[in-house]
Amino acid sequence: MRVPGARALHLLQVLRVKPGQVVRVGVIDGPKGVASVCSVSKDAVDLHCTLDPEPPERPRVDLLLAVPRPKVLRRLWSQLSALGLGRIILTNAERVERPYFDTHVLAEECYRPLLIEGLQQAKDTRLPLVSIHRQFRVLIEDDLDALAGTGIRLVADPSAGLRATDVAASCLGPKRHARVLLAVGPEGGWNAFELQLLDSHGFLRMGMGPRTLRTDTACLALLAILHELMSQRPGTGA
Amino acid sequence: MRVPGARALHLLQVLRVKPGQVVRVGVIDGPKGVASVCSVSKDAVDLHCTLDPEPPERPRVDLLLAVPRPKVLRRLWSQLSALGLGRIILTNAERVERPYFDTHVLAEECYRPLLIEGLQQAKDTRLPLVSIHRQFRVLIEDDLDALAGTGIRLVADPSAGLRATDVAASCLGPKRHARVLLAVGPEGGWNAFELQLLDSHGFLRMGMGPRTLRTDTACLALLAILHELMSQRPGTGA
Repeated sequence: MRVPGARALHLLQVLRVKPGQVVRVGVIDGPKGVASVCSVSKDAVDLHCTLDPEPPERPRVDLLLAVPRPKVLRRLWSQLSALGLGRIILTNAERVERPYFDTHVLAEECYRPLLIEGLQQAKDTRLPLVSIHRQFRVLIEDDLDALAGTGIRLVADPSAGLRATDVAASCLGPKRHARVLLAVGPEGGWNAFELQLLDSHGFLRMGMGPRTLRTDTACLALLAILHELMSQRPGTGA
Repeated sequence: MRVPGARALHLLQVLRVKPGQVVRVGVIDGPKGVASVCSVSKDAVDLHCTLDPEPPERPRVDLLLAVPRPKVLRRLWSQLSALGLGRIILTNAERVERPYFDTHVLAEECYRPLLIEGLQQAKDTRLPLVSIHRQFRVLIEDDLDALAGTGIRLVADPSAGLRATDVAASCLGPKRHARVLLAVGPEGGWNAFELQLLDSHGFLRMGMGPRTLRTDTACLALLAILHELMSQRPGTGA
């Protein structure tokens, strides 16, 4: 196959490929594989691709995130897909400022290339599914079951006594193949009604100890912790 | 005590304090506590502080980091101190670009306010100790023992088979009170000599599974995982 455009420039200028060289490739939402370089020209590269029979497994963690400030969200997209998410559910909340919904960073033409950048970094092909919800209550009461299924539901709450390792001991261990949905609120936190609604829809409150973190740091930290605990081999707990 | 300047503005304009109100306070590298507001004026606030008898424990994780791009490092400072670090050891490496050392973000007057911002976020007072080393080999061979003592040493390596939870099972559990030093290399990785030198000075190679992350994301992710595993109560492993 002939690869033109930005990918050709990356092959030619960053990887500086020569005919015969082998590079890693992947099809978005399809299999990964390797490709050997057949020939190069000024602005295109011909590749012979050998792909795996199956696409990689979709990451088993989903994120429900109150829409953060546009500058923060722009930085998060690629980091979220690099850490690995099956689904990103963006929602309104009382403490989400209205203009956040009218921003370019919620447009697919903005976030899709950023998500792909994270996948390239992480050597994954499974593009997270993204949906945007302006009504928190409708999302939680009517839409969430269809979106997130029946996995374990957690909500990040700095005041919670329960920590991720406690949850791992009781949930992630025995139900090793379940999905996990993590909810992270706005910078000022969920309000009482929102937390109550999450409680009544099965979300366990989970903290990270006495330190409180900015929501973007908390989001990356908790996703990393969940992935690590879900990958834990049986019997290796400390 | 009378609080002027930026802290007074925060009290007056963000927290909008009134006399009698109680706020959280902390002394840098000293104890935390609470303060009640005695009186407010246009640009100062009088507080009556009640401090804990002891400062909080210094975080038990230290970071050895190859100097990243200035833009990345500027963003990292507050996130690192928010996650909690005893010491930040910045080092040269073959794949660190020379101009990175001449940047403003390595100057104490730049990073100190950013570190304090992270402490304020995390409700901590222990300012990470920062040192900057232009010679990797001298740092590892001559200076590291004095800087980082005899704790557990880990180096982030995407190709390592060992994961944090495996290390936790063998090291962090039984030696629950030890310190951990985490080394994170430059964007292109440590070179073979550097990795070998780390190996021979007791660093265990540790990965995060098949996904490779940008060094800043990896840094935050691994620190979060280490803190979580070090806080794990005995017998709660999955």
